[in-house]
Parts: sequence; structure tokens; C-alpha cells
Amino acid sequence: MALWEKNLRRVTPYVPGEQPKEQNIIKLNTNENPYGPAPEVSRILSCFDADSLRKYPDPEASLLVKQLSATYGVPEESIFVGVGSDDVLAMSFLTFFAGEGDILFPDVTYSFYDVWARMIGISYKTIPLHEDFTWAPEDYEVPNQGIVLANPNAPTGLMAPLSDIRKVLEKNPGSVVIVDEAYVDFGGESTLPLIQEYDNLLIVRTFSKSRSLAGSRIGFAFGSRQLIKALSDVKFSFNSYTMDSVTLQVGAASLRDQDYFQDCVQKIITTREESKKRFSDMGFSFPDSSTNFLLVTHKDMDIPALYEYLRDKHIYVRHFNAPRLNDYLRVTIGLPEEMDQLFAAISQYMKG
Amino acid sequence: MALWEKNLRRVTPYVPGEQPKEQNIIKLNTNENPYGPAPEVSRILSCFDADSLRKYPDPEASLLVKQLSATYGVPEESIFVGVGSDDVLAMSFLTFFAGEGDILFPDVTYSFYDVWARMIGISYKTIPLHEDFTWAPEDYEVPNQGIVLANPNAPTGLMAPLSDIRKVLEKNPGSVVIVDEAYVDFGGESTLPLIQEYDNLLIVRTFSKSRSLAGSRIGFAFGSRQLIKALSDVKFSFNSYTMDSVTLQVGAASLRDQDYFQDCVQKIITTREESKKRFSDMGFSFPDSSTNFLLVTHKDMDIPALYEYLRDKHIYVRHFNAPRLNDYLRVTIGLPEEMDQLFAAISQYMKG
Repeated sequence: MALWEKNLRRVTPYVPGEQPKEQNIIKLNTNENPYGPAPEVSRILSCFDADSLRKYPDPEASLLVKQLSATYGVPEESIFVGVGSDDVLAMSFLTFFAGEGDILFPDVTYSFYDVWARMIGISYKTIPLHEDFTWAPEDYEVPNQGIVLANPNAPTGLMAPLSDIRKVLEKNPGSVVIVDEAYVDFGGESTLPLIQEYDNLLIVRTFSKSRSLAGSRIGFAFGSRQLIKALSDVKFSFNSYTMDSVTLQVGAASLRDQDYFQDCVQKIITTREESKKRFSDMGFSFPDSSTNFLLVTHKDMDIPALYEYLRDKHIYVRHFNAPRLNDYLRVTIGLPEEMDQLFAAISQYMKG
Repeated sequence: MALWEKNLRRVTPYVPGEQPKEQNIIKLNTNENPYGPAPEVSRILSCFDADSLRKYPDPEASLLVKQLSATYGVPEESIFVGVGSDDVLAMSFLTFFAGEGDILFPDVTYSFYDVWARMIGISYKTIPLHEDFTWAPEDYEVPNQGIVLANPNAPTGLMAPLSDIRKVLEKNPGSVVIVDEAYVDFGGESTLPLIQEYDNLLIVRTFSKSRSLAGSRIGFAFGSRQLIKALSDVKFSFNSYTMDSVTLQVGAASLRDQDYFQDCVQKIITTREESKKRFSDMGFSFPDSSTNFLLVTHKDMDIPALYEYLRDKHIYVRHFNAPRLNDYLRVTIGLPEEMDQLFAAISQYMKG
């Protein structure tokens, strides 16, 4: 070991879903949107003034923040933007959990939460989801310095009612409660109305799923003015210019076309509901998803083997080698014809 | 104070140079390049397949890393990329300075170093530059867990010889030594040849200055395989996908046109050398800059007043309200005609 290695931060990095470089695969493994971004995104890129890139971008990201403000009816000072929701969440962990005590999140949830906690040195306690992957507000009535809830939860897909989030907020005025709404656009109920009532509520969102812009890296957060000020102060202590000039325009263009956005989301919801029926018909079971994915299992099937089988057929879904998830596959909702191919492959597998 | 505020990270954010929104100003305050990026950047943007943005970018940023490898003759596993050099530096502070003891950097240098140290909770000691803003390797023979040296230094513009960096590395095998080469392309001597000899040397670079891509947010680092592995592990514990798909292509396109790059750099060096002469002729003095800026002072002039005067004339330069710098202005080298206007305004000011 080199001498300088004694000063290293010890981490176990998050492992993202595979991003295979081959073409001609059916990619249902990272919850990407099967439809492209709003048509204006293409126009923005083709007309972009490349010369303007010699200058720094607006550190306040005003173009994007103003458009978010107009789209969601939230004041600009209640909005924060970052390099994907992972950046927003990492900054939030840095900002809000610098006190004493554990932060709390479910045992089955986005697997980056514990990575951030360990990287930053925040102690944490996982709260087991119930047998059916639901949770109750009372589960979070233990001492804590912060709570993180994905709603709808991933990878379960389950949505908790707003009344449950409200109960958690009521009981924890001394903690920032982060609600990660990465998937809320696919039929979930947003906690957004509650930011006016609770100054300790931070809602985190992304352009990666419902807005078909995973490749652009745009995340955002809503919260009280005090919360957003604290988050911005930490962000400006880390990197003044996180959002590049092209991305700011791409994000704003996407927000301006709400009809296209709603249309894509609706198509995915339709395909999801059809897929639920097809999985059920084949004997699979799953939590009732409000997202763009399904977490499926089958009592008579070797799920890791099915995963490998599909992969050999160039169909990528996600399998988590994790407690309670080993017998599940997370399947992103793709195009109807991609789902047809998936179900055809599963049928073949079942026929042996 | 709200109850949850007890858990907040306390920070004093870095204040970036002003990014005024008005047009028709002469902007010599944030060391931007007066020439646009390589022509292929424009072509890349106009042909970009917007539909591909629905997918996540390559988390390994291979396109850009491979092009950096080819351009600089450095193996891919010795290269790290991030969202501007600020992101690379912030990640490096997180990664390499998690041990005991102070980190060291000069008292007059890039004013983000102390911001990162305080934000992360790293104790630090500043080493005073000599009266003439130079430093000596012996200054860094004090116990430390890390050393950060900008070379050329900012905002002084002064270049230390490679032999001095080598001496610091020799004496500090237990510390990672970060050499911030943001400005090295404007006539400095890079520490790059030393990465094969010293596994504790990290060299940080940026596309924001010499490559005219401040608006794209691209920074990179060179170091030993072990150093880059440690840095990547922390990065992947923070945000898997930092570099968006457009930026990866923009960065690679810029690197492919080395002739254009060299030409722009040479024009700036020529303008800088002319500007040195003109400042001297007007009675200004300055450290001998190897960068795209000059740190000027004048023994008979009220420098903060000159700053305000220029600002009123829509000429933005940078004044730091900081010890030892109050009587200096940092002036970015702009287009020849912009410098003409600057010198005309200073002449007017001197005539009173």
C-alpha cells in the first residue's frame, strides 16, 4: 500500500444498471423512456450558437429555473437544479444530514441512499418494508436526523398516499424529509402541495424518466425557501457551474411542450397496465406499480435463470443481487413491440 | 430557527466572478477565451441525434476519455473526467484528504480551495507566498496530509519550474499532491511527465479556458492508476452519470482539432505579451504571467476606484476583496480590440 493511501476515503460505489454498447438489444434495465424527448429539443440543438460556449453558463441556471417555476407554479426561490437527481440527492445528503443521529430509509429502496450515507459518513438505519413492500408512518417514529422516502418507491413501484407522507412530516419537525419523486409522473400523487405547509420537506425530481432526457442529466428539487437556500449554499461550495449551457436550453425546451410530455407518459401507462395483465396471466405477481417499471416474481420460476435467459436473447432487464429481491426482476416498460418480444421470450422460457 | 436547521452543514460558499446578463459589455473578469470553440463543435451540435438523449450517457465517458488518451498520450486508466475542473477538484478533496492533519496551499491562490476544505471538514494551513508571489519547495516541508498547488498559480499568473514541483513530491510521499493546471496551456510547463514517476501526483485540467468551452463544463485529471481508481470510486459513490451525452461529443470534437486549439492559444499569448508591454508603459506592475490573465497593480493608483470606473464603462475585470490582493486587478486577455478599449479607458481614467 502506498503511503498516501492512508488518507483515502473508503467507499463502496453504487453500481448502475448495465449500459451495453451493442445495438439491437431490447433495453428494459434502467427505466429509460422508450420515446424520445420533445421535438423542440432537436431544434434547440441544431440551432445552438456554439460560439456562446466560450462563456461560463449562468450559475443560477435561471432559464431552467424560471421554466420550472412556470410549469409547476412554484416560486423560483423554492427550486434547485442539478446534474440529474443523483446530484441533487447527493448535495441534499451533504447539506441536511450533517447533524447527530441516524437517517432513516426503507430496507428495499433506491440503492444509492446507503452509498451516499457511507460516503459522507452519515449513520443510517434501514426500516424494513412490510411483507408486501408497503410501509406505515409509525415505522418512522424513531429518533432520526433525517428521512428519505422514494414515492413511488423503487424498485417496488408502490405509491404511498399523501396522507402517510404528511404523518411522517408531522412527527418529524426536526428532520428534513426527502421525498424522491423520480417516478411520480407515471400516475403517482405528488407531495408538492405540502411544501407550503412543511418547511422541512424536500421533493426531488428528474428529467431522466418521464421527460426522456436521461442523457442530458437534469434533476431538480422543490422545497421551502430556507431549505433551497441551504442546499444552494452547499452546491456553491462544491461547484459554481453545474448545469452547462446546452443542457439549460434542452431542459427548458422539454418543459415548454407539456402536451408531448403528457402524451408519452400516457402511452407508457397504457403499456404498463397491459403488461400487468400479461404478467398476471402468465402467473407472475408484482406490487401494483405507479411507475414505468414492474417488479415481478413467479412462485414456480428460477428468476436469476430467467434473467440470464433473457440476456442471452438480448433482452436486458434488471436483477438485484440483494436481500428480499433475489427472486424478482425489475422490468422497465418499453415500446409495445418491445414488450411483445419480452413476453414471447418468457413464454418460450416457460415452455422449456 | 427551524428545528431541522441544527443538522445543516455550515458553509461559506465560493463567489464566482460576475456573469452579467447585459450584452455589449467587455467581459475580462472570468478568464474566458475570447475565441469560440473548435468549428467541429458547432457541427456536432447541429447533427446531434436528440432521440438518443432518452438513454443514459456512458457512465465511463469513454468517448472523451479515449480522445484525451490519444491527445495526451496517457493511458485511459490514468484519466478522470468531471463537470468542470471544480467538480474534479471537489471530488479529489473528498477522495484524498480523508485522513488526519492539515492540507497545505498558498495564501494567495484559487479561492475555492479553502471553501472545499471547510465544506468537507478538512483542516488546512495556508503557506504565505513570498513578497513577490513566488514560493519555494522548502515552504511545504511541514507535516500535512495533502498539498494543492495551482501552476501557473491564479490569480498571480506565475509559473513555478517543474523542478520545484518535483521537490515537493520527493518530500511528501505520504500525501497526494494536486497540481491544478487550469492555465498551463498558455505557455506553462506541464507536470504531466512526472505522473509516471510519482503515484501521488494528480494533475487537474479544464476545457474552460484554453479550449473555449466554459459553457460545456468539462474538467479532467491525470494521475497514477491507483489515484484515478480511488477518485473514480468516490465519483461513482456520488453520481454515476456526471457527463451528459452532448458534452461527451463536444469535448471529443474539441480535442480532435489541435491546430485550431494551438492557433487560439498562440493568439492569446501574443495579445498577452503586447498587453504586458502596454501595462508597463502606463506604470503598472504585475507578476510575469504564463496564463490568459494579468494581475496588475499601480503604485500611484486607487485600484478599487479604477475597478468601479471600468465597470461604469461596461468593462468588467476582477477585483478580489482579499488580503494582499486589494490593490490588484485581474484582467483576462481578450480580443486585441477589447484590450484596446480597456487601455483607452484606463488612459482616460489616468487623465482624470
